[in-house]
Amino acid sequence: MADISGKAVSRRIAIAGGKIHLGEQAFSLLMEGKLPKGDPLAMAEIAGIQAAKQTSSLIPLCHPISLNRVTIHSVPRPDDHSVELFCVTEIAEKTGVEMEALTGLSVALLTIWDLTKPVNAALEISNTRLLFKSGGKRGTWIHPDGMPEEAQAIVKDLLGGL
Amino acid sequence: MADISGKAVSRRIAIAGGKIHLGEQAFSLLMEGKLPKGDPLAMAEIAGIQAAKQTSSLIPLCHPISLNRVTIHSVPRPDDHSVELFCVTEIAEKTGVEMEALTGLSVALLTIWDLTKPVNAALEISNTRLLFKSGGKRGTWIHPDGMPEEAQAIVKDLLGGL
Amino acid sequence: MADISGKAVSRRIAIAGGKIHLGEQAFSLLMEGKLPKGDPLAMAEIAGIQAAKQTSSLIPLCHPISLNRVTIHSVPRPDDHSVELFCVTEIAEKTGVEMEALTGLSVALLTIWDLTKPVNAALEISNTRLLFKSGGKRGTWIHPDGMPEEAQAIVKDLLGGL
Amino acid sequence: MADISGKAVSRRIAIAGGKIHLGEQAFSLLMEGKLPKGDPLAMAEIAGIQAAKQTSSLIPLCHPISLNRVTIHSVPRPDDHSVELFCVTEIAEKTGVEMEALTGLSVALLTIWDLTKPVNAALEISNTRLLFKSGGKRGTWIHPDGMPEEAQAIVKDLLGGL
Amino acid sequence: MADISGKAVSRRIAIAGGKIHLGEQAFSLLMEGKLPKGDPLAMAEIAGIQAAKQTSSLIPLCHPISLNRVTIHSVPRPDDHSVELFCVTEIAEKTGVEMEALTGLSVALLTIWDLTKPVNAALEISNTRLLFKSGGKRGTWIHPDGMPEEAQAIVKDLLGGL
Amino acid sequence: MADISGKAVSRRIAIAGGKIHLGEQAFSLLMEGKLPKGDPLAMAEIAGIQAAKQTSSLIPLCHPISLNRVTIHSVPRPDDHSVELFCVTEIAEKTGVEMEALTGLSVALLTIWDLTKPVNAALEISNTRLLFKSGGKRGTWIHPDGMPEEAQAIVKDLLGGL
Repeated sequence: MADISGKAVSRRIAIAGGKIHLGEQAFSLLMEGKLPKGDPLAMAEIAGIQAAKQTSSLIPLCHPISLNRVTIHSVPRPDDHSVELFCVTEIAEKTGVEMEALTGLSVALLTIWDLTKPVNAALEISNTRLLFKSGGKRGTWIHPDGMPEEAQAIVKDLLGGL
Repeated sequence: MADISGKAVSRRIAIAGGKIHLGEQAFSLLMEGKLPKGDPLAMAEIAGIQAAKQTSSLIPLCHPISLNRVTIHSVPRPDDHSVELFCVTEIAEKTGVEMEALTGLSVALLTIWDLTKPVNAALEISNTRLLFKSGGKRGTWIHPDGMPEEAQAIVKDLLGGL
Repeated sequence: MADISGKAVSRRIAIAGGKIHLGEQAFSLLMEGKLPKGDPLAMAEIAGIQAAKQTSSLIPLCHPISLNRVTIHSVPRPDDHSVELFCVTEIAEKTGVEMEALTGLSVALLTIWDLTKPVNAALEISNTRLLFKSGGKRGTWIHPDGMPEEAQAIVKDLLGGL
Repeated sequence: MADISGKAVSRRIAIAGGKIHLGEQAFSLLMEGKLPKGDPLAMAEIAGIQAAKQTSSLIPLCHPISLNRVTIHSVPRPDDHSVELFCVTEIAEKTGVEMEALTGLSVALLTIWDLTKPVNAALEISNTRLLFKSGGKRGTWIHPDGMPEEAQAIVKDLLGGL
Repeated sequence: MADISGKAVSRRIAIAGGKIHLGEQAFSLLMEGKLPKGDPLAMAEIAGIQAAKQTSSLIPLCHPISLNRVTIHSVPRPDDHSVELFCVTEIAEKTGVEMEALTGLSVALLTIWDLTKPVNAALEISNTRLLFKSGGKRGTWIHPDGMPEEAQAIVKDLLGGL
Repeated sequence: MADISGKAVSRRIAIAGGKIHLGEQAFSLLMEGKLPKGDPLAMAEIAGIQAAKQTSSLIPLCHPISLNRVTIHSVPRPDDHSVELFCVTEIAEKTGVEMEALTGLSVALLTIWDLTKPVNAALEISNTRLLFKSGGKRGTWIHPDGMPEEAQAIVKDLLGGL
């Protein structure tokens, strides 16, 4: 675990995004609220928040940090029967917060998997990416492919603009 | 958390697979053992094993189970500068073991992310899928797209054939 | 931690019950779905399930066990502006499952507290009791004061009658 | 998990209180040090301290914080054969510390339950309340019913007076 | 994590032993119950039991198992101002229980360290050894140097003799 | 858990050291990379780092802290067929960091034990000591017996000299 004692404290935000492809049937059941084990999106939100707080116990070289904010946003994508999730993390410390966003995102996606797998075993998670980070020595970074508009709206809401 | 008391105990195996796209530079540094924070594949293996054991504390409706086996296998893919991982889980209990394989896989992929992100912020995890499961009421299931040959070899090694 | 190696494995069920008194305003906001931080009952259910699985790491002399079932049931009580929760746990092992039911119940009640405390700081949790247990050497036990009808219905649903 | 980055850091103290009703026989055995599994009050103190430190992993929307102090105080109440516990938490951060006090208290009470249940299955936990908090934007708050004298003494000891 | 699915279930017991050297002053304060932070031996017992249950989350290749018994025994050794601890673990599973005994022992010793370090910074833990194991394919094993008489008494108590 | 709110924040470093005696055969197999379960030193490093981060959940009165650095260094000692480990922890907080160094060290040593025990059941951990600490009210402290030269080199590297 690298030394971070010389780094400056600054407000840091990260947004990670990714998709779970449910297939037509599971996607319809999700949209209609008919999945047998409860509401996957509500449960994914809580599981993702809890997991983001456990990042340093899951990823060996991550520092334990005091997250100021974790939120999970879900956007159904009827075109390809997927749900896209965004996980936003924020901190005022000496180290970045990307791994927390990615860990919260991944566990939220896996929670949706767990609740839809009785309907479709051939699920797929894809496009797990860091979309945005700000703060720290290197300042604001946006993924070279840009961000989905929902992620842009989150940034606008948090920082007043890109 | 659903009742599983009426289910039969059987030997159950699951294999999950997924890829992390590193880009040309980070992939080369990984292959040459020159990444600054140590060997990502060795660390990913341990982190993935540890995470698979924590599945029930991460995924809300997963039952706590006593895993008999967790292994992580990594295969570098020079064609697209990615590393493909497989996580194999095995159990002799009343409930399936897919979520444990997927959780071990996801945390192993995130550990590689953490160790290569100083070189490339635009990493991507994709193709997270359940490839194989056996045991339980429904018996053997193989992903409709088939399995990479490395995953086929794992099954052959564990079960003596497909 | 006492030796349980000589005990017989049997199906064991426990039901714990307890109430959180919200006061008139917070109770109304909860019923109308207008509390600022989201739906306390949905979140309490997940938090209680997760906590029941962590019982042996919280209560020093509790054995680690593989729960077959954890469910949380919430019943609003308009008469005294409270919510009554029931936590049901089930196992097929050598040791009882009361502490798991009580731990799941307590954390579920605390989760409702966390989400309603912005409205009322003078909340109160009361009546935390074991209502029912079955299985093990001593067989079925019902609290001397009897059980609320909702808990009776749970027992009927699980065991076909009292 | 709400954003707390804009809040001021201040010294915050919380005291939670609650009772476990043991019944005459278990209360006598506890007072005489004759309970079969060891000293419940000593064990409850340690379990409560440990649990208070785990609050953010138990209560979904609680922020991970660095507690400066956790103490558990137990007061036997021969009148109703109960033990009353107080859990005091202190922090210098941007967020309150009530849930930590309540979580430490609840797990301490459950630990006494676990150690007295061989004698009496019909135990009851009641009167779980926040008694006092200080610090933060809203300043000092005392429960409208006042505080037991033991809790008043704790506040006096910590803050030099009410 | 190695495959254990083919192994037989048997009653397995392990005893680990080790010493913490306190120095004359800290040893005297411990014996007189005058250490500032409470009773180290009582706290060490609970911490060791809790840690033994967490072994599989601490030691990467340890299987998660359901311990039937964990006990910690402490023996003051005035001759060299040390305290010798024994940790006994028992299980009925397919895998051994030595690492659980060693983990419980080590954390119990560290807990005594934490409570005596205000008096002496030059503490030392030594002689951490597996003293005894029984059950499994290889049957009973005793450390080639033999066992202290207190450990022999524990074995006699559990198994009726060596 | 003692109150630390009045203490000053300062850069604090601790180094703990200890040895595991492997015996001739296991030491040779370790040196030749021929142990059956993988590379113990690499795995011990990761397990030790992870454990140091969990110190406050293992040692009852340890405060939860945000470690800035954890590193594990291993030095084979062919003379007595042992491996000596050093665990270095660093923090900028109000409380010391010795227990974190000792916990990381102990779990790293136990991980080597777990991977070499198939070859030798009569392993031994000894000489677990705090070697060095700096920062805090009392300033720099070195073990009265001095430090091995490898630990001296670590201090020189971190602080530019003793």
